Amino acid sequence: MISAADRLISCIKKKGNPCVVGLDPRIPEMPNWAKARISGPDDHEGIRDAIVSFHKVVLDEVCNLVPAVKPQSAFFEQYGLGGLLALQETIRMARERDLFVILDAKRNDISSTAQAYANACLGETEIPTGSLKALDVDYLTVSPFLGWDSVSPFVDACAEYGKGLFILVKTSNPGSADIQDLTESVSGKKVYQLLSESVADVASKTIGESGYSSIGAVVGATYPNEAKLLRELMPTSIFLVPGYGAQGGTGDTIAHCFNSDGLGAVVNSSRGITYGIEDPASSESAVGSTIRKRTEKMVQDITDAISCRLG
Amino acid sequence: MISAADRLISCIKKKGNPCVVGLDPRIPEMPNWAKARISGPDDHEGIRDAIVSFHKVVLDEVCNLVPAVKPQSAFFEQYGLGGLLALQETIRMARERDLFVILDAKRNDISSTAQAYANACLGETEIPTGSLKALDVDYLTVSPFLGWDSVSPFVDACAEYGKGLFILVKTSNPGSADIQDLTESVSGKKVYQLLSESVADVASKTIGESGYSSIGAVVGATYPNEAKLLRELMPTSIFLVPGYGAQGGTGDTIAHCFNSDGLGAVVNSSRGITYGIEDPASSESAVGSTIRKRTEKMVQDITDAISCRLG
Repeated sequence: MISAADRLISCIKKKGNPCVVGLDPRIPEMPNWAKARISGPDDHEGIRDAIVSFHKVVLDEVCNLVPAVKPQSAFFEQYGLGGLLALQETIRMARERDLFVILDAKRNDISSTAQAYANACLGETEIPTGSLKALDVDYLTVSPFLGWDSVSPFVDACAEYGKGLFILVKTSNPGSADIQDLTESVSGKKVYQLLSESVADVASKTIGESGYSSIGAVVGATYPNEAKLLRELMPTSIFLVPGYGAQGGTGDTIAHCFNSDGLGAVVNSSRGITYGIEDPASSESAVGSTIRKRTEKMVQDITDAISCRLG
Repeated sequence: MISAADRLISCIKKKGNPCVVGLDPRIPEMPNWAKARISGPDDHEGIRDAIVSFHKVVLDEVCNLVPAVKPQSAFFEQYGLGGLLALQETIRMARERDLFVILDAKRNDISSTAQAYANACLGETEIPTGSLKALDVDYLTVSPFLGWDSVSPFVDACAEYGKGLFILVKTSNPGSADIQDLTESVSGKKVYQLLSESVADVASKTIGESGYSSIGAVVGATYPNEAKLLRELMPTSIFLVPGYGAQGGTGDTIAHCFNSDGLGAVVNSSRGITYGIEDPASSESAVGSTIRKRTEKMVQDITDAISCRLG
């Protein structure tokens, strides 16, 4: 089985960039042609259709430009049944268009419960008459707060199903300092350093042909100095870098997340690509065109930043 | 609006104990009359019916015995669409039987994404024609790993909708030591102590008529010494105590989670109550009877432990 990291690196090389378009459904901010499909709060199919029709336009525009999309689970979950139907269909449409799917769900729990989350997102769930795949994405974001025994079931599922993880190490928000930046008394190291050492240890045992492991890390675009250190500490992990665009991260600040081979990170932008369309009456083609232009700008910005890093 | 803590304390007093029955659907371990409802992996209604029929028996037996149930989101999510349908129906059936619903989902994310999770579980989500409530439970478990700015949207939702949180402070698994037990260099305090101080700070601003705040904490039944310290550090927070039963926590070890008023904690048992029914051909009434006896034993064990603590 080809590892998730090998597949992702191959996809990045094919598309010529490591950009990820985030999919965070916010129905009130969608254009009229999407949100008009909803007749009321119980209209699950209308809610699904609104989200799916919007994402179809996004996916059609970006599928030739970027290697991956990142659906954010919370924004689907808030729409209940229609949201889950839309998430399943969004994942299906993305894979149909040869896009990698990174589910941002920051799951975490212990033992058999962690296993159940791994079943839900990466593997399959046994039922008396066979087994089912609830979501079946390529990569999942996971929180390490409960300890490494809580991460193990996810790591095992990756090996079994050819999937990957992005483990939270240093997130992009100001409050990430509260726990992640604490200094441990004996080693004098910060929590994110200790976490990165554990991630590197797991990653070192699962390096694929690309030279990268499927056990990656989340490293925010908003902390370039930390990113530089973390890049050295986790040489074989792919970084998922949030915070570009709406949160203030720029091409320059994310450059440190890449290795000298120009690889080793994927950079996400969500709101900056898909929302803030000024006129809700904009046509499908006008919205598509805006999304395409924004994506092309991001791709240019990120590839320029990587070139500078290499140059 | 009556706060979640005031409602929960009132419910504990009414039932005379602080026991919580966990609902973790594991279809292969269910009795035949439940799992026979499933015709195949795409039979979402059959999956929903299997889980709902089993939970109906559990809820009918325990609703007069305990104040609350705790559905574990992961075990529903792994069953996809049928799982979500079953979770929504399980929540509805529990509320109909005057049971408090604690959704164990350990959600965590930042800013608008945290808000979306709060909408999904505790509040409501705006759509163009109104708003919808995706799950609408009483309490939600939340991870603080991303920092206090990530917890704020959940705290705000609790104030707005009369809901509560159990924030992870010291979990019941051995790996909880990896991050939660690290000692911070300046203060010499462990991470769980620092977390408990922040929880206590938020809790102190939201104390209800019962003397308790709706901002609670998760404190594992497997670490009695830590529980003793944390009880002092978070006097007004209600503890959700997992790890009783299958994970090895006993009535004695959980006694320290209670205040001298005999209140201040709820104790969960999941597998120990609902699974391990030896004969899959057992009838509904036989399964119901076993669940009732186990719940009565747990109630006795916990109320004895609280009496000892008080005595």
